[in-house]
Amino acid sequence: MYYVGIDLGGTNIAAGLCDEKGNILSQSSVPTMKERDWKEIVRDMAAIAEKVVKDAGHTLDEVEAVGIGCPGSIDKEHGVVVYSNNIVMHNATVAEEFQKYIDKPVYLENDANAAALGEYAAYGEGISSFVFFTLGTGVGGGIIFDGKVWSGFNGAGGEIGHQTLVFGGEPCTCGRRGCLEAYASVTALIRQTKTAMEKHPESLMNEWAEKKGRVSGRTAFECAKMGDAAAIEVRDRYIEYVADGVASIVNVLQPEIVAIGGGISREGDLLLEPIKKYLSENDYNKYMPKTEIRIAKLFGDAGIVGAAMGCIVAEK
Amino acid sequence: MYYVGIDLGGTNIAAGLCDEKGNILSQSSVPTMKERDWKEIVRDMAAIAEKVVKDAGHTLDEVEAVGIGCPGSIDKEHGVVVYSNNIVMHNATVAEEFQKYIDKPVYLENDANAAALGEYAAYGEGISSFVFFTLGTGVGGGIIFDGKVWSGFNGAGGEIGHQTLVFGGEPCTCGRRGCLEAYASVTALIRQTKTAMEKHPESLMNEWAEKKGRVSGRTAFECAKMGDAAAIEVRDRYIEYVADGVASIVNVLQPEIVAIGGGISREGDLLLEPIKKYLSENDYNKYMPKTEIRIAKLFGDAGIVGAAMGCIVAEK
Repeated sequence: MYYVGIDLGGTNIAAGLCDEKGNILSQSSVPTMKERDWKEIVRDMAAIAEKVVKDAGHTLDEVEAVGIGCPGSIDKEHGVVVYSNNIVMHNATVAEEFQKYIDKPVYLENDANAAALGEYAAYGEGISSFVFFTLGTGVGGGIIFDGKVWSGFNGAGGEIGHQTLVFGGEPCTCGRRGCLEAYASVTALIRQTKTAMEKHPESLMNEWAEKKGRVSGRTAFECAKMGDAAAIEVRDRYIEYVADGVASIVNVLQPEIVAIGGGISREGDLLLEPIKKYLSENDYNKYMPKTEIRIAKLFGDAGIVGAAMGCIVAEK
Repeated sequence: MYYVGIDLGGTNIAAGLCDEKGNILSQSSVPTMKERDWKEIVRDMAAIAEKVVKDAGHTLDEVEAVGIGCPGSIDKEHGVVVYSNNIVMHNATVAEEFQKYIDKPVYLENDANAAALGEYAAYGEGISSFVFFTLGTGVGGGIIFDGKVWSGFNGAGGEIGHQTLVFGGEPCTCGRRGCLEAYASVTALIRQTKTAMEKHPESLMNEWAEKKGRVSGRTAFECAKMGDAAAIEVRDRYIEYVADGVASIVNVLQPEIVAIGGGISREGDLLLEPIKKYLSENDYNKYMPKTEIRIAKLFGDAGIVGAAMGCIVAEK
């Protein structure tokens, strides 16, 4: 049997047909046009689900269930988006609405948790505990225990970007101060880069940003590769912020694997090795086996795969 | 059937006979004399176990199992203390040694995790997720999911005192900087109190400490009750540190209940209400049911009850 995974983002609705191992057989995306009524968005989700099934040469009869990753607070049991401010939804009965078009079991999950489940699935079976960090506009992710998403007693947990890094520090999008997200997101990295550029007008970063037309999450990383001192300082400090957030999670949860995803994770070992080094110095655990820190595998496809894999977990 | 719970501390070995609901029927303690060989300590643990059974008018035949909470890194499966630096033990086969005296199943657990399990048991059945913070010399505690201790894939997790509060901040006993423990332990509170006393020679705290012969965790709290401005500042800031640590855990785990224990928790609502207020402003979750924050119930007995209750969990 097959599973459709849908990743509802603020920009695009992405969908894929997956087999039960999480391999994507076909995939497609359409613009979300998030200002629309959510019911129109659900209609397009159903249409793209049909399309990916057809594109892979299969029929809906061969589809066991549909998984949907949505931003916001999710009531999984009833398939309802209780609240989302990115795509405006309030008590939106997404599963029920979707079933008007495709009458299959629907598994609704928070998008970051679905992505965590996707990454987890990519590591195969037998991992007892897994935490996924995704470094993007914010710092998201999720926690997987025994193959299931841990999102607290109320479904709102797994907000690993909203643990404190600096008590009373930088304002965070969530309204608090000093969250990890306010230091370790790409948004924060861009802020840190701009501050360093102002302080060091001689830095290559100024030239690089002018050439590219903007400051991005890559500015400091690319200029650091070229030996620019100010860029190296920004990059190294940013990596320390990320690593410290990982250390807090490791000290509290000691998961078997922590995976780091998001665009910046394409830096690979350049990001991974200093994080590992930091962990070796900041892990409270000195005598037991250690959490493994890895770069995530699926990049943009984690949401699709995770939503599809969620169906299998929900069936169990 | 009955269960013996033993709480091995750096100062005392405390033991109690418990029924299967976690009620203590008899209890006793003897000095640990921690400089001794650990095998002598285990011998005394067996002796005090026999004593509490006898004191309650029962016999060892009626005892199903013995739970032991030990400081350090524990290999639960084999009943081994892998490493403890408080009471010096390294690969100490505690369960096996204990069984030379009392041939019953032995459940060995980290002492903080055992205490968390004890507090959890005190709330009765049906709680899906529970986090216990204990504010003492350090900040300890534990995480309970579905009635079981969560201590990571390696048994070293649940170190909620070693999440970051201030990146690069005060040195912590663990060797890192800026851990919650370095701000929210009673040790930290005493440091904060002393700093404020020096800065404010007019503060009542100076007089109070002189009368008592020392600065303690109560100095700021007691003088704040008498309206001393510097003491109020220390107390309020300290409570914010604690509350922020709770907020990080809530944002990540969204447990059903968080309980705050340790000597300072005897302040009751004076501690609890500002923590609740802080959480109402700093919980990332705005739309789903909220984590309940409570004062712990068992105080010093949590370790005994938790060790005993651990036997029941382990049997399942």
